[in-house]
Amino acid sequence: MSEKFFSRRSVEQVEEGTQLAPKFDSAGLIPAIATDYETGEVLMHGYMNTEALEKTIKTGEAYYFSRSRNQLWHKGATSGLIQTVKELMIDDDQDCVLLKVNIVGGASCHVGYRSCFYRRISLRDDSSRLKLEFTDREKVFDPKVVYRDNPSPTKL
Amino acid sequence: MSEKFFSRRSVEQVEEGTQLAPKFDSAGLIPAIATDYETGEVLMHGYMNTEALEKTIKTGEAYYFSRSRNQLWHKGATSGLIQTVKELMIDDDQDCVLLKVNIVGGASCHVGYRSCFYRRISLRDDSSRLKLEFTDREKVFDPKVVYRDNPSPTKL
Repeated sequence: MSEKFFSRRSVEQVEEGTQLAPKFDSAGLIPAIATDYETGEVLMHGYMNTEALEKTIKTGEAYYFSRSRNQLWHKGATSGLIQTVKELMIDDDQDCVLLKVNIVGGASCHVGYRSCFYRRISLRDDSSRLKLEFTDREKVFDPKVVYRDNPSPTKL
Repeated sequence: MSEKFFSRRSVEQVEEGTQLAPKFDSAGLIPAIATDYETGEVLMHGYMNTEALEKTIKTGEAYYFSRSRNQLWHKGATSGLIQTVKELMIDDDQDCVLLKVNIVGGASCHVGYRSCFYRRISLRDDSSRLKLEFTDREKVFDPKVVYRDNPSPTKL
């Protein structure tokens, strides 16, 4: 546990207090949601370990923990799409953080879209297998150019 | 695995296709972010299992899996703060869903606030231990009245 964080002592302290006492899961991770500071749009969902959260707080740039590469991940180090953190929020039970960010270039998703959430699931659909509908077809950048030969982080 | 979902066969299928092929983690869960459909504000972060995702799609109301109670959780069943899902999105690698919801009463957080994210972490703070700042002090409801003797879901 980081020396920068408080120990979790009571529900009241965690929910109603002003001490940062984040809860990391059994793998040492806390989920992190990034939204666009200007529009509020949800851009991505990732994870941080203690080091990533500390570096994000210290530098004001978003660090995550890459589960596919099993290492600290300075978002934008490869693509140039650095996330500047304008506000960093934590939730009621302090087991999730929310980053409100500005991104140089405006794109967050490694596939090339502005947001990672570019497809919609049909509701109240009785089909035998469920389909997705694209809500954004316009890529902000070409991932083949930006990432070149880096493998996709997507795991099957 | 649900019969409603496709198997995950390739990165291209998962990222660029129109087949719903969600990835559940080793505990059988997928993270779920709920935002306010009108304002876009992030309200909460939770988890769904297969059954919760299927019921959400089928009914258009948000179901989660409660890790603290280890059971399916129809959000609002106790508090009355049902989440009506207006849009359900999935991310690039299909390991996170995003619900855009309307809530009767407008509150989502079990502590009584509109959003679970009502505190801000100070950035570039060299303090020995880090503090939080409340960004919302106005509770929408009194949890003692709404939940009565139900224990807090917050785990230390």
